Amino acid sequence: VALTMALTPLIMVFEEKVLRPRFGTRETNPREPDAMNEDAPVILAGVGRFGNFVARMLRSQKIAVTVIDRDSDHIEFLRKLGIQAFYGDANRHDLLEAAGAHRAKLIIIALDEEEEIAKLIETVRKHFPHLQILARALSRPHQFQLINLGITNTVHQHAGSAIELARGALVHLGYRAHRAPRISEAFIEFDRKGTDEVAAVHQDEKAFVTTVRRNIAEMESQFEEDRER
Amino acid sequence: VALTMALTPLIMVFEEKVLRPRFGTRETNPREPDAMNEDAPVILAGVGRFGNFVARMLRSQKIAVTVIDRDSDHIEFLRKLGIQAFYGDANRHDLLEAAGAHRAKLIIIALDEEEEIAKLIETVRKHFPHLQILARALSRPHQFQLINLGITNTVHQHAGSAIELARGALVHLGYRAHRAPRISEAFIEFDRKGTDEVAAVHQDEKAFVTTVRRNIAEMESQFEEDRER
Repeated sequence: VALTMALTPLIMVFEEKVLRPRFGTRETNPREPDAMNEDAPVILAGVGRFGNFVARMLRSQKIAVTVIDRDSDHIEFLRKLGIQAFYGDANRHDLLEAAGAHRAKLIIIALDEEEEIAKLIETVRKHFPHLQILARALSRPHQFQLINLGITNTVHQHAGSAIELARGALVHLGYRAHRAPRISEAFIEFDRKGTDEVAAVHQDEKAFVTTVRRNIAEMESQFEEDRER
Repeated sequence: VALTMALTPLIMVFEEKVLRPRFGTRETNPREPDAMNEDAPVILAGVGRFGNFVARMLRSQKIAVTVIDRDSDHIEFLRKLGIQAFYGDANRHDLLEAAGAHRAKLIIIALDEEEEIAKLIETVRKHFPHLQILARALSRPHQFQLINLGITNTVHQHAGSAIELARGALVHLGYRAHRAPRISEAFIEFDRKGTDEVAAVHQDEKAFVTTVRRNIAEMESQFEEDRER
């Protein structure tokens, strides 16, 4: 089924994989980066499978988001949806400048490669130190790395989703509707705290073990108390 | 830094990527599947980066989970953590049987490959039709596919996590602490409803467009009303 071009404004609602088989390849087109100006408070670097949820959630709140992505098809679709989108490498500080980085409040990094993410953090800190950085972690060790770089807002790319699935399991096992969300919120909080603590010591075996043990014990006794109440 | 074997019980708290560089390769070992019996209400197929969060969350609630995975290192670690873990291919119905599928209440599918997931759904429906199925979707089209197979409990592998990151952005932009979680809950709900509706019609261009447009409009006007209140 070939979709007509009139459909493109809506396409961004779904992700690349819906489109790829219909529109053919969406590999990066080599072309010059765009130059535009924008006053959005949020810059989003990367709008693949992960980033597109971020863009849509913020857009649903009428928060202006400027997107930077190296996939020119992503960019076209976002523009048609009315989102300011820049084609190019988010690591180029002139592109960030053109995207309004000096006026934005925060940058959300949803790129796919650890190295690119590290470089972007460096670029942002050097050229736009006022920007708050939020970053997607690709794995647990990557999350440790980000935390040790001083990024306090990191989310493991699967954590929230996996916990949502587990929460569905609780409901099926008969947990009351109000209890399951409370448990998953608490688990996310424990996980966040535990990850921060372990990130600080994970190079040191002894401290690593002690910290993990303590975190598990704390979490289990806390949940135990909650169940008794 | 080489971790000692005494550490392994705790290792599962982190994911494969922490371990891989320390313990060397963790590729599937060819060996015979295990045979054991278990009475856990939950079977979890796949405990990689995604599944391990599910296992830990349920374990934190003292819910017994039986895990099946084809990575023998994952299995060893889980066993040392006291989680019943079966090495082997979750698609083998004799292995599911040995894992207690006839007595379990639900199966959570967190495998990495679309084809494997589809096969497991088929196997479960044929041999253990009483089992409730919950599944991780690898992409949006995959989620449509699962929904169209009648799986009502699906979670896109990035959705919850991306929305958590966006929620962090709302907080940084000055949204009050109680408002951000309400917004993300509502967004997840809209997304779930929208995905179900679009899955039903996504092969039909016209219905696809109409449904997506209506969902966006409904979501935006609902959030608009909320903001005015």
